[in-house]
Amino acid sequence: MIAVKDKVRFVETDMMGVVHHSNYFRWFELGRVAYLKEAGVEILDMMANGYLCPIKDVACTYKNSALFDDEIIIEATMIAFTKVKMVFAYKIIRAKDKVVLAEGQTTNAFTGADGKVKRLPDSYFGKIKRLYDEEQEG
Amino acid sequence: MIAVKDKVRFVETDMMGVVHHSNYFRWFELGRVAYLKEAGVEILDMMANGYLCPIKDVACTYKNSALFDDEIIIEATMIAFTKVKMVFAYKIIRAKDKVVLAEGQTTNAFTGADGKVKRLPDSYFGKIKRLYDEEQEG
Amino acid sequence: MIAVKDKVRFVETDMMGVVHHSNYFRWFELGRVAYLKEAGVEILDMMANGYLCPIKDVACTYKNSALFDDEIIIEATMIAFTKVKMVFAYKIIRAKDKVVLAEGQTTNAFTGADGKVKRLPDSYFGKIKRLYDEEQEG
Amino acid sequence: MIAVKDKVRFVETDMMGVVHHSNYFRWFELGRVAYLKEAGVEILDMMANGYLCPIKDVACTYKNSALFDDEIIIEATMIAFTKVKMVFAYKIIRAKDKVVLAEGQTTNAFTGADGKVKRLPDSYFGKIKRLYDEEQEG
Repeated sequence: MIAVKDKVRFVETDMMGVVHHSNYFRWFELGRVAYLKEAGVEILDMMANGYLCPIKDVACTYKNSALFDDEIIIEATMIAFTKVKMVFAYKIIRAKDKVVLAEGQTTNAFTGADGKVKRLPDSYFGKIKRLYDEEQEG
Repeated sequence: MIAVKDKVRFVETDMMGVVHHSNYFRWFELGRVAYLKEAGVEILDMMANGYLCPIKDVACTYKNSALFDDEIIIEATMIAFTKVKMVFAYKIIRAKDKVVLAEGQTTNAFTGADGKVKRLPDSYFGKIKRLYDEEQEG
Repeated sequence: MIAVKDKVRFVETDMMGVVHHSNYFRWFELGRVAYLKEAGVEILDMMANGYLCPIKDVACTYKNSALFDDEIIIEATMIAFTKVKMVFAYKIIRAKDKVVLAEGQTTNAFTGADGKVKRLPDSYFGKIKRLYDEEQEG
Repeated sequence: MIAVKDKVRFVETDMMGVVHHSNYFRWFELGRVAYLKEAGVEILDMMANGYLCPIKDVACTYKNSALFDDEIIIEATMIAFTKVKMVFAYKIIRAKDKVVLAEGQTTNAFTGADGKVKRLPDSYFGKIKRLYDEEQEG
Protein backbone atom coordinates (compact mmCIF):
# COMPACT_ATOMS: atom_id res chain seq x y z
CA MET A 1 0.00 0.00 0.00
CA ILE A 2 1.29 3.41 -0.98
CA ALA A 3 0.13 6.51 0.85
CA VAL A 4 0.15 9.99 -0.65
CA LYS A 5 -0.63 13.13 1.30
CA ASP A 6 -2.53 16.02 -0.20
CA LYS A 7 -4.69 18.91 0.87
CA VAL A 8 -8.20 19.68 -0.36
CA ARG A 9 -8.23 22.57 -2.83
CA PHE A 10 -10.87 25.28 -2.79
CA VAL A 11 -11.74 24.55 -6.41
CA GLU A 12 -12.50 20.96 -5.47
CA THR A 13 -15.49 22.04 -3.39
CA ASP A 14 -18.97 22.68 -4.77
CA MET A 15 -21.91 24.77 -3.60
CA MET A 16 -22.95 22.05 -1.12
CA GLY A 17 -19.80 23.12 0.75
CA VAL A 18 -18.01 19.79 0.34
CA VAL A 19 -15.69 18.22 -2.21
CA HIS A 20 -17.46 17.27 -5.44
CA HIS A 21 -17.62 13.49 -5.74
CA SER A 22 -15.87 13.42 -9.12
CA ASN A 23 -12.67 14.71 -7.56
CA TYR A 24 -12.05 11.56 -5.53
CA PHE A 25 -11.14 9.78 -8.77
CA ARG A 26 -8.50 12.42 -9.34
CA TRP A 27 -7.09 11.64 -5.91
CA PHE A 28 -7.20 7.90 -6.60
CA GLU A 29 -5.12 8.65 -9.68
CA LEU A 30 -2.47 10.36 -7.57
CA GLY A 31 -2.22 7.19 -5.50
CA ARG A 32 -2.05 4.94 -8.55
CA VAL A 33 0.68 7.02 -10.17
CA ALA A 34 2.67 7.01 -6.91
CA TYR A 35 2.34 3.23 -6.64
CA LEU A 36 3.76 2.70 -10.12
CA LYS A 37 6.55 5.20 -9.41
CA GLU A 38 7.38 3.28 -6.22
CA ALA A 39 7.62 0.17 -8.39
CA GLY A 40 10.05 2.01 -10.66
CA VAL A 41 7.63 2.58 -13.53
CA GLU A 42 6.86 6.03 -14.89
CA ILE A 43 3.61 6.61 -16.77
CA LEU A 44 5.40 9.07 -19.07
CA ASP A 45 7.97 6.43 -19.93
CA MET A 46 5.23 3.88 -20.63
CA MET A 47 3.44 6.34 -22.89
CA ALA A 48 6.67 7.22 -24.71
CA ASN A 49 7.03 3.49 -25.41
CA GLY A 50 3.52 3.14 -26.75
CA TYR A 51 1.72 1.77 -23.70
CA LEU A 52 -1.42 3.41 -22.40
CA CYS A 53 -3.42 2.36 -19.36
CA PRO A 54 -7.00 3.51 -19.91
CA ILE A 55 -9.53 3.13 -17.12
CA LYS A 56 -12.06 0.34 -17.70
CA ASP A 57 -14.20 0.66 -14.60
CA VAL A 58 -14.33 2.59 -11.36
CA ALA A 59 -16.41 2.67 -8.22
CA CYS A 60 -16.47 4.74 -5.07
CA THR A 61 -18.42 4.76 -1.82
CA TYR A 62 -18.56 8.04 0.06
CA LYS A 63 -18.68 7.81 3.83
CA ASN A 64 -17.84 11.28 5.10
CA SER A 65 -17.45 14.55 3.27
CA ALA A 66 -14.02 15.95 2.57
CA LEU A 67 -13.90 19.68 3.28
CA PHE A 68 -11.75 22.50 1.96
CA ASP A 69 -8.27 22.56 3.47
CA ASP A 70 -8.57 19.05 4.96
CA GLU A 71 -5.31 17.18 4.88
CA ILE A 72 -6.00 13.83 3.32
CA ILE A 73 -4.13 10.58 2.91
CA ILE A 74 -4.69 8.66 -0.31
CA GLU A 75 -3.98 4.96 0.20
CA ALA A 76 -3.60 2.89 -2.95
CA THR A 77 -3.29 -0.89 -2.84
CA MET A 78 -2.92 -3.06 -5.91
CA ILE A 79 -5.34 -5.96 -5.56
CA ALA A 80 -4.94 -7.71 -8.91
CA PHE A 81 -2.29 -7.54 -11.62
CA THR A 82 -1.70 -9.29 -14.92
CA LYS A 83 -0.03 -8.30 -18.18
CA VAL A 84 -3.30 -6.91 -19.45
CA LYS A 85 -4.79 -5.15 -16.45
CA MET A 86 -4.27 -3.80 -12.96
CA VAL A 87 -6.84 -3.35 -10.22
CA PHE A 88 -6.39 -0.94 -7.33
CA ALA A 89 -8.34 -0.37 -4.14
CA TYR A 90 -8.21 3.01 -2.42
CA LYS A 91 -9.00 4.69 0.83
CA ILE A 92 -9.23 8.43 1.29
CA ILE A 93 -8.48 9.20 4.92
CA ARG A 94 -8.76 12.51 6.77
CA ALA A 95 -5.31 12.99 8.26
CA LYS A 96 -6.19 14.67 11.52
CA ASP A 97 -8.43 11.92 12.91
CA LYS A 98 -7.89 9.02 10.50
CA VAL A 99 -11.55 8.92 9.56
CA VAL A 100 -12.15 7.16 6.24
CA LEU A 101 -13.88 9.56 3.88
CA ALA A 102 -14.24 7.26 0.90
CA GLU A 103 -13.28 3.87 -0.46
CA GLY A 104 -12.99 2.99 -4.09
CA GLN A 105 -11.65 0.71 -6.77
CA THR A 106 -10.42 1.09 -10.34
CA THR A 107 -9.39 -1.21 -13.18
CA ASN A 108 -6.92 -0.12 -15.86
CA ALA A 109 -6.25 -2.05 -19.04
CA PHE A 110 -2.91 -1.94 -20.84
CA THR A 111 -3.32 -0.96 -24.47
CA GLY A 112 -1.46 0.51 -27.40
CA ALA A 113 -2.19 3.93 -28.81
CA ASP A 114 -4.87 2.27 -30.96
CA GLY A 115 -6.83 1.33 -27.84
CA LYS A 116 -6.31 -2.40 -28.37
CA VAL A 117 -5.05 -4.61 -25.59
CA LYS A 118 -1.24 -4.73 -25.56
CA ARG A 119 0.40 -7.04 -23.04
CA LEU A 120 2.89 -5.34 -20.76
CA PRO A 121 6.47 -6.31 -21.63
CA ASP A 122 8.60 -7.92 -18.94
CA SER A 123 10.48 -4.68 -18.34
CA TYR A 124 7.39 -3.03 -16.89
CA PHE A 125 5.61 -6.17 -15.75
CA GLY A 126 8.53 -7.43 -13.68
CA LYS A 127 8.97 -4.20 -11.73
CA ILE A 128 5.32 -3.84 -10.85
CA LYS A 129 4.97 -7.56 -10.09
CA ARG A 130 7.84 -7.35 -7.64
CA LEU A 131 6.13 -4.63 -5.59
CA TYR A 132 2.75 -6.35 -5.89
CA ASP A 133 4.17 -9.66 -4.65
CA GLU A 134 6.08 -8.01 -1.82
CA GLU A 135 2.89 -6.40 -0.62
CA GLN A 136 0.91 -9.63 -0.93
CA GLU A 137 3.51 -11.38 1.22
CA GLY A 138 3.80 -8.49 3.65
CA MET B 1 -35.44 8.15 -19.13
CA ILE B 2 -34.25 11.67 -19.76
CA ALA B 3 -31.72 12.42 -22.48
CA VAL B 4 -29.43 15.45 -22.48
CA LYS B 5 -27.20 16.38 -25.38
CA ASP B 6 -23.77 17.85 -24.88
CA LYS B 7 -20.47 18.14 -26.69
CA VAL B 8 -17.08 17.06 -25.38
CA ARG B 9 -14.98 20.01 -24.26
CA PHE B 10 -11.27 20.30 -25.01
CA VAL B 11 -10.53 20.69 -21.31
CA GLU B 12 -12.21 17.36 -20.64
CA THR B 13 -9.50 15.50 -22.55
CA ASP B 14 -6.19 14.40 -21.06
CA MET B 15 -2.78 13.62 -22.53
CA MET B 16 -3.95 10.13 -23.58
CA GLY B 17 -6.03 12.04 -26.13
CA VAL B 18 -9.40 10.96 -24.72
CA VAL B 19 -11.80 12.25 -22.10
CA HIS B 20 -10.54 11.79 -18.55
CA HIS B 21 -12.65 9.19 -16.77
CA SER B 22 -13.59 11.51 -13.90
CA ASN B 23 -15.56 13.73 -16.28
CA TYR B 24 -18.20 11.10 -16.98
CA PHE B 25 -19.55 11.68 -13.46
CA ARG B 26 -19.95 15.33 -14.33
CA TRP B 27 -22.00 14.29 -17.34
CA PHE B 28 -24.09 11.90 -15.25
CA GLU B 29 -24.85 14.87 -13.01
CA LEU B 30 -26.19 16.84 -15.98
CA GLY B 31 -28.58 13.97 -16.66
CA ARG B 32 -29.64 13.69 -13.01
CA VAL B 33 -30.32 17.42 -12.73
CA ALA B 34 -32.34 17.35 -15.97
CA TYR B 35 -34.39 14.41 -14.70
CA LEU B 36 -35.36 16.26 -11.52
CA LYS B 37 -36.11 19.38 -13.54
CA GLU B 38 -38.38 17.30 -15.80
CA ALA B 39 -40.15 16.14 -12.64
CA GLY B 40 -40.62 19.77 -11.64
CA VAL B 41 -37.99 19.82 -8.90
CA GLU B 42 -35.13 22.30 -8.93
CA ILE B 43 -31.95 21.49 -6.99
CA LEU B 44 -31.56 25.17 -6.11
CA ASP B 45 -35.06 25.22 -4.64
CA MET B 46 -34.34 22.06 -2.62
CA MET B 47 -31.13 23.60 -1.28
CA ALA B 48 -32.90 26.86 -0.42
CA ASN B 49 -35.32 24.76 1.63
CA GLY B 50 -32.58 22.91 3.46
CA TYR B 51 -32.42 19.69 1.47
CA LEU B 52 -29.14 18.44 0.10
CA CYS B 53 -28.62 15.31 -1.99
CA PRO B 54 -25.03 14.18 -1.45
CA ILE B 55 -23.66 11.30 -3.48
CA LYS B 56 -23.28 8.05 -1.52
CA ASP B 57 -21.83 5.78 -4.16
CA VAL B 58 -21.01 5.77 -7.85
CA ALA B 59 -19.76 3.33 -10.45
CA CYS B 60 -18.91 3.53 -14.11
CA THR B 61 -17.81 1.08 -16.80
CA TYR B 62 -15.98 2.56 -19.78
CA LYS B 63 -16.55 0.84 -23.11
CA ASN B 64 -15.32 3.27 -25.74
CA SER B 65 -13.39 6.51 -25.40
CA ALA B 66 -15.16 9.81 -25.78
CA LEU B 67 -13.10 12.20 -27.91
CA PHE B 68 -12.91 15.97 -28.13
CA ASP B 69 -15.83 17.51 -29.99
CA ASP B 70 -17.91 14.31 -29.94
CA GLU B 71 -21.58 15.00 -29.58
CA ILE B 72 -22.83 12.86 -26.74
CA ILE B 73 -26.21 11.88 -25.37
CA ILE B 74 -26.47 11.48 -21.61
CA GLU B 75 -29.31 9.12 -20.73
CA ALA B 76 -30.43 9.15 -17.09
CA THR B 77 -32.96 6.65 -15.77
CA MET B 78 -34.16 6.56 -12.18
CA ILE B 79 -34.03 2.96 -11.02
CA ALA B 80 -34.92 3.29 -7.34
CA PHE B 81 -36.54 6.06 -5.32
CA THR B 82 -37.59 6.50 -1.70
CA LYS B 83 -37.86 9.47 0.64
CA VAL B 84 -34.27 8.97 1.70
CA LYS B 85 -32.46 8.12 -1.52
CA MET B 86 -32.54 8.00 -5.29
CA VAL B 87 -30.62 5.71 -7.60
CA PHE B 88 -29.93 6.51 -11.22
CA ALA B 89 -28.49 4.48 -14.09
CA TYR B 90 -26.82 6.25 -16.99
CA LYS B 91 -25.62 5.67 -20.49
CA ILE B 92 -23.26 7.96 -22.34
CA ILE B 93 -23.89 7.53 -26.05
CA ARG B 94 -21.95 8.92 -28.99
CA ALA B 95 -24.58 10.76 -31.01
CA LYS B 96 -23.32 10.12 -34.51
CA ASP B 97 -23.42 6.32 -34.39
CA LYS B 98 -25.26 5.57 -31.15
CA VAL B 99 -22.29 3.67 -29.74
CA VAL B 100 -22.42 3.37 -25.94
CA LEU B 101 -19.29 4.93 -24.48
CA ALA B 102 -19.97 4.27 -20.83
CA GLU B 103 -22.58 3.03 -18.41
CA GLY B 104 -22.83 4.01 -14.79
CA GLN B 105 -24.89 4.28 -11.66
CA THR B 106 -25.12 6.68 -8.72
CA THR B 107 -26.93 6.82 -5.39
CA ASN B 108 -27.83 10.11 -3.73
CA ALA B 109 -29.09 10.41 -0.17
CA PHE B 110 -31.41 13.20 0.97
CA THR B 111 -29.98 15.06 3.94
CA GLY B 112 -30.15 18.34 5.77
CA ALA B 113 -27.33 20.84 5.81
CA ASP B 114 -25.91 18.91 8.79
CA GLY B 115 -25.37 15.86 6.59
CA LYS B 116 -27.95 13.79 8.47
CA VAL B 117 -30.68 11.92 6.62
CA LYS B 118 -33.74 14.11 6.12
CA ARG B 119 -36.76 12.50 4.51
CA LEU B 120 -38.02 14.30 1.43
CA PRO B 121 -41.29 16.11 2.10
CA ASP B 122 -44.32 15.21 -0.02
CA SER B 123 -43.93 18.36 -2.09
CA TYR B 124 -40.70 17.09 -3.62
CA PHE B 125 -41.36 13.39 -3.19
CA GLY B 126 -44.69 13.47 -5.00
CA LYS B 127 -43.37 15.21 -8.09
CA ILE B 128 -40.41 12.93 -8.50
CA LYS B 129 -42.47 9.83 -7.69
CA ARG B 130 -44.94 10.72 -10.41
CA LEU B 131 -42.24 10.80 -13.09
CA TYR B 132 -40.58 7.70 -11.69
CA ASP B 133 -43.87 5.74 -11.72
CA GLU B 134 -44.76 6.93 -15.20
CA GLU B 135 -41.44 5.68 -16.47
CA GLN B 136 -41.79 2.36 -14.65
CA GLU B 137 -45.18 1.87 -16.30
CA GLY B 138 -44.02 3.12 -19.67
CA MET C 1 -18.96 37.34 -33.16
CA ILE C 2 -20.04 33.78 -32.45
CA ALA C 3 -22.42 33.01 -29.61
CA VAL C 4 -22.63 29.65 -27.87
CA LYS C 5 -25.28 28.78 -25.31
CA ASP C 6 -24.54 26.64 -22.30
CA LYS C 7 -25.85 26.04 -18.82
CA VAL C 8 -23.86 26.27 -15.59
CA ARG C 9 -22.99 22.83 -14.22
CA PHE C 10 -23.21 21.98 -10.53
CA VAL C 11 -19.58 20.88 -10.55
CA GLU C 12 -18.57 24.34 -11.78
CA THR C 13 -19.65 25.94 -8.50
CA ASP C 14 -17.52 26.16 -5.39
CA MET C 15 -18.27 26.52 -1.70
CA MET C 16 -18.82 30.28 -2.09
CA GLY C 17 -21.97 29.22 -3.95
CA VAL C 18 -20.91 30.67 -7.30
CA VAL C 19 -18.97 29.45 -10.32
CA HIS C 20 -15.24 29.09 -9.67
CA HIS C 21 -13.36 31.75 -11.63
CA SER C 22 -11.15 29.22 -13.43
CA ASN C 23 -14.17 27.81 -15.26
CA TYR C 24 -14.75 30.95 -17.29
CA PHE C 25 -11.66 30.08 -19.32
CA ARG C 26 -13.25 26.75 -20.13
CA TRP C 27 -16.29 28.60 -21.41
CA PHE C 28 -14.13 30.99 -23.44
CA GLU C 29 -12.62 27.89 -25.04
CA LEU C 30 -16.07 26.70 -26.12
CA GLY C 31 -16.56 30.03 -27.86
CA ARG C 32 -13.15 29.92 -29.52
CA VAL C 33 -13.66 26.38 -30.81
CA ALA C 34 -17.11 27.34 -32.16
CA TYR C 35 -15.63 30.37 -33.92
CA LEU C 36 -13.04 28.26 -35.73
CA LYS C 37 -15.69 25.68 -36.61
CA GLU C 38 -17.84 28.48 -38.05
CA ALA C 39 -14.82 29.44 -40.16
CA GLY C 40 -14.60 25.84 -41.37
CA VAL C 41 -11.54 24.89 -39.32
CA GLU C 42 -11.59 21.94 -36.93
CA ILE C 43 -9.08 21.84 -34.08
CA LEU C 44 -8.84 18.06 -34.42
CA ASP C 45 -7.95 18.43 -38.08
CA MET C 46 -5.31 21.05 -37.26
CA MET C 47 -3.80 18.76 -34.65
CA ALA C 48 -3.83 15.80 -37.03
CA ASN C 49 -1.83 17.98 -39.43
CA GLY C 50 0.71 18.96 -36.81
CA TYR C 51 -0.60 22.37 -35.79
CA LEU C 52 -1.20 23.19 -32.16
CA CYS C 53 -2.58 26.44 -30.79
CA PRO C 54 -1.30 26.80 -27.23
CA ILE C 55 -2.53 29.65 -25.08
CA LYS C 56 0.04 32.43 -24.55
CA ASP C 57 -1.88 34.78 -22.29
CA VAL C 58 -5.34 35.21 -20.85
CA ALA C 59 -7.22 37.74 -18.77
CA CYS C 60 -10.68 37.98 -17.31
CA THR C 61 -12.66 40.56 -15.38
CA TYR C 62 -15.56 39.26 -13.30
CA LYS C 63 -18.56 41.55 -12.98
CA ASN C 64 -21.38 39.37 -11.66
CA SER C 65 -21.36 35.82 -10.37
CA ALA C 66 -22.62 32.99 -12.52
CA LEU C 67 -24.80 30.63 -10.51
CA PHE C 68 -25.68 26.98 -10.87
CA ASP C 69 -28.22 26.31 -13.62
CA ASP C 70 -27.89 29.78 -15.13
CA GLU C 71 -28.24 29.73 -18.87
CA ILE C 72 -25.29 31.60 -20.29
CA ILE C 73 -24.28 32.96 -23.64
CA ILE C 74 -20.60 32.82 -24.53
CA GLU C 75 -19.74 35.49 -27.09
CA ALA C 76 -16.39 35.11 -28.83
CA THR C 77 -15.03 37.80 -31.15
CA MET C 78 -11.70 37.54 -32.94
CA ILE C 79 -9.89 40.85 -32.47
CA ALA C 80 -6.51 40.10 -34.07
CA PHE C 81 -5.30 37.40 -36.43
CA THR C 82 -2.03 36.62 -38.17
CA LYS C 83 -0.35 33.42 -39.33
CA VAL C 84 1.33 33.08 -35.95
CA LYS C 85 -1.37 34.07 -33.47
CA MET C 86 -5.03 34.78 -32.86
CA VAL C 87 -6.55 37.01 -30.21
CA PHE C 88 -10.13 36.66 -29.00
CA ALA C 89 -12.31 38.81 -26.78
CA TYR C 90 -15.19 37.24 -24.89
CA LYS C 91 -18.31 38.12 -23.01
CA ILE C 92 -20.17 35.75 -20.74
CA ILE C 93 -23.79 36.88 -20.60
CA ARG C 94 -26.60 35.62 -18.39
CA ALA C 95 -29.31 34.63 -20.87
CA LYS C 96 -32.39 35.56 -18.90
CA ASP C 97 -31.58 39.25 -18.42
CA LYS C 98 -28.57 39.80 -20.68
CA VAL C 99 -26.40 40.89 -17.77
CA VAL C 100 -22.68 40.62 -18.55
CA LEU C 101 -21.08 38.29 -16.01
CA ALA C 102 -17.52 38.49 -17.24
CA GLU C 103 -15.31 39.80 -20.02
CA GLY C 104 -12.03 38.33 -21.08
CA GLN C 105 -9.35 37.96 -23.68
CA THR C 106 -7.00 35.22 -24.83
CA THR C 107 -4.05 34.91 -27.20
CA ASN C 108 -3.18 31.63 -28.90
CA ALA C 109 0.03 31.00 -30.80
CA PHE C 110 0.27 28.55 -33.70
CA THR C 111 3.03 26.03 -33.15
CA GLY C 112 4.16 22.61 -34.16
CA ALA C 113 4.17 19.63 -31.81
CA ASP C 114 7.62 20.78 -30.68
CA GLY C 115 6.15 23.98 -29.29
CA LYS C 116 7.96 26.16 -31.80
CA VAL C 117 6.11 28.78 -33.82
CA LYS C 118 4.75 27.30 -37.02
CA ARG C 119 3.02 29.65 -39.43
CA LEU C 120 -0.50 28.64 -40.36
CA PRO C 121 -0.67 27.38 -43.96
CA ASP C 122 -3.03 29.13 -46.36
CA SER C 123 -5.57 26.34 -46.10
CA TYR C 124 -6.33 27.23 -42.50
CA PHE C 125 -5.33 30.86 -42.63
CA GLY C 126 -7.59 31.68 -45.55
CA LYS C 127 -10.72 30.23 -43.98
CA ILE C 128 -10.25 31.96 -40.68
CA LYS C 129 -9.22 35.23 -42.33
CA ARG C 130 -12.39 35.24 -44.40
CA LEU C 131 -14.61 35.08 -41.31
CA TYR C 132 -12.41 37.57 -39.47
CA ASP C 133 -12.59 40.06 -42.34
CA GLU C 134 -16.32 39.62 -42.75
CA GLU C 135 -16.83 40.44 -39.12
CA GLN C 136 -14.50 43.42 -39.27
CA GLU C 137 -16.51 44.80 -42.16
CA GLY C 138 -19.85 43.89 -40.59
CA MET D 1 6.56 35.71 -0.97
CA ILE D 2 5.17 32.32 -0.07
CA ALA D 3 6.19 29.23 -2.01
CA VAL D 4 4.10 26.08 -2.26
CA LYS D 5 5.29 22.89 -3.87
CA ASP D 6 3.01 20.66 -5.87
CA LYS D 7 3.19 18.09 -8.63
CA VAL D 8 1.32 18.18 -11.93
CA ARG D 9 -1.62 15.78 -11.96
CA PHE D 10 -2.48 13.61 -14.96
CA VAL D 11 -5.99 15.04 -15.02
CA GLU D 12 -4.53 18.53 -15.37
CA THR D 13 -3.18 17.71 -18.83
CA ASP D 14 -5.17 17.93 -22.04
CA MET D 15 -4.86 16.28 -25.44
CA MET D 16 -2.10 18.72 -26.48
CA GLY D 17 -0.02 16.81 -23.93
CA VAL D 18 0.49 19.77 -21.59
CA VAL D 19 -1.35 21.29 -18.64
CA HIS D 20 -4.58 23.02 -19.63
CA HIS D 21 -4.20 26.76 -19.14
CA SER D 22 -7.21 27.04 -16.81
CA ASN D 23 -5.45 24.96 -14.18
CA TYR D 24 -2.81 27.59 -13.48
CA PHE D 25 -5.47 29.64 -11.72
CA ARG D 26 -6.12 26.68 -9.47
CA TRP D 27 -2.43 26.65 -8.61
CA PHE D 28 -2.41 30.39 -7.99
CA GLU D 29 -5.24 29.78 -5.53
CA LEU D 30 -3.09 27.30 -3.61
CA GLY D 31 -0.45 30.01 -3.26
CA ARG D 32 -2.97 32.63 -2.18
CA VAL D 33 -4.51 30.37 0.44
CA ALA D 34 -1.05 29.50 1.78
CA TYR D 35 -0.13 33.17 1.99
CA LEU D 36 -3.20 33.97 4.10
CA LYS D 37 -2.54 30.92 6.27
CA GLU D 38 1.03 32.15 6.79
CA ALA D 39 -0.46 35.45 7.92
CA GLY D 40 -2.64 33.57 10.38
CA VAL D 41 -5.89 33.93 8.48
CA GLU D 42 -7.98 30.92 7.44
CA ILE D 43 -10.41 31.25 4.54
CA LEU D 44 -12.81 28.89 6.31
CA ASP D 45 -12.78 31.11 9.38
CA MET D 46 -13.40 34.19 7.24
CA MET D 47 -16.32 32.49 5.54
CA ALA D 48 -17.76 31.34 8.87
CA ASN D 49 -17.70 34.98 9.93
CA GLY D 50 -19.46 36.18 6.82
CA TYR D 51 -16.51 37.36 4.72
CA LEU D 52 -16.05 36.16 1.18
CA CYS D 53 -13.21 37.07 -1.14
CA PRO D 54 -14.49 36.69 -4.70
CA ILE D 55 -12.10 37.10 -7.60
CA LYS D 56 -12.52 40.37 -9.52
CA ASP D 57 -9.91 39.96 -12.21
CA VAL D 58 -7.14 37.62 -13.23
CA ALA D 59 -4.42 37.43 -15.84
CA CYS D 60 -1.76 34.93 -16.79
CA THR D 61 1.10 34.79 -19.29
CA TYR D 62 2.29 31.32 -20.27
CA LYS D 63 5.98 30.98 -21.03
CA ASN D 64 6.71 27.26 -20.99
CA SER D 65 4.36 24.30 -20.78
CA ALA D 66 3.95 22.42 -17.54
CA LEU D 67 3.98 18.67 -18.14
CA PHE D 68 2.52 15.74 -16.26
CA ASP D 69 4.49 14.81 -13.15
CA ASP D 70 6.54 18.03 -13.18
CA GLU D 71 7.31 19.25 -9.69
CA ILE D 72 6.29 22.87 -9.57
CA ILE D 73 6.80 25.74 -7.17
CA ILE D 74 3.94 28.21 -6.82
CA GLU D 75 5.24 31.58 -5.66
CA ALA D 76 2.61 34.03 -4.37
CA THR D 77 3.47 37.63 -3.52
CA MET D 78 0.95 40.14 -2.25
CA ILE D 79 1.46 43.35 -4.22
CA ALA D 80 -1.43 45.49 -2.96
CA PHE D 81 -3.67 45.27 0.08
CA THR D 82 -6.48 47.36 1.52
CA LYS D 83 -9.56 46.61 3.59
CA VAL D 84 -11.56 46.06 0.42
CA LYS D 85 -9.19 44.15 -1.85
CA MET D 86 -5.98 42.22 -2.19
CA VAL D 87 -3.79 41.80 -5.25
CA PHE D 88 -1.36 38.95 -5.71
CA ALA D 89 1.34 38.26 -8.28
CA TYR D 90 2.40 34.68 -8.97
CA LYS D 91 5.12 32.68 -10.60
CA ILE D 92 4.84 29.01 -11.49
CA ILE D 93 8.34 27.58 -11.54
CA ARG D 94 9.49 24.14 -12.66
CA ALA D 95 11.36 22.81 -9.65
CA LYS D 96 14.09 20.82 -11.37
CA ASP D 97 15.60 23.68 -13.37
CA LYS D 98 13.88 26.77 -11.95
CA VAL D 99 12.41 27.69 -15.33
CA VAL D 100 9.44 30.04 -15.03
CA LEU D 101 6.44 28.39 -16.65
CA ALA D 102 3.92 31.15 -16.10
CA GLU D 103 3.36 34.48 -14.39
CA GLY D 104 0.04 35.85 -13.31
CA GLN D 105 -1.93 38.22 -11.16
CA THR D 106 -5.28 38.19 -9.38
CA THR D 107 -7.45 40.67 -7.51
CA ASN D 108 -9.88 39.58 -4.80
CA ALA D 109 -12.50 41.82 -3.27
CA PHE D 110 -13.77 41.39 0.28
CA THR D 111 -17.52 41.08 0.39
CA GLY D 112 -20.36 39.76 2.50
CA ALA D 113 -22.48 36.79 1.52
CA ASP D 114 -24.66 39.22 -0.43
CA GLY D 115 -21.76 40.01 -2.75
CA LYS D 116 -21.52 43.62 -1.57
CA VAL D 117 -18.21 45.11 -0.51
CA LYS D 118 -17.58 44.51 3.19
CA ARG D 119 -14.47 46.05 4.69
CA LEU D 120 -12.18 43.60 6.42
CA PRO D 121 -12.31 44.01 10.20
CA ASP D 122 -9.06 44.76 12.04
CA SER D 123 -8.79 41.18 13.25
CA TYR D 124 -8.15 39.93 9.73
CA PHE D 125 -6.74 43.12 8.29
CA GLY D 126 -4.04 43.46 10.94
CA LYS D 127 -2.69 39.97 10.51
CA ILE D 128 -2.48 40.15 6.75
CA LYS D 129 -1.09 43.69 6.85
CA ARG D 130 1.70 42.60 9.15
CA LEU D 131 2.92 39.95 6.71
CA TYR D 132 2.43 42.28 3.76
CA ASP D 133 4.47 45.04 5.41
CA GLU D 134 7.20 42.65 6.48
CA GLU D 135 7.58 41.49 2.92
CA GLN D 136 7.56 45.03 1.56
CA GLU D 137 10.38 45.92 3.94
CA GLY D 138 12.25 42.65 3.34
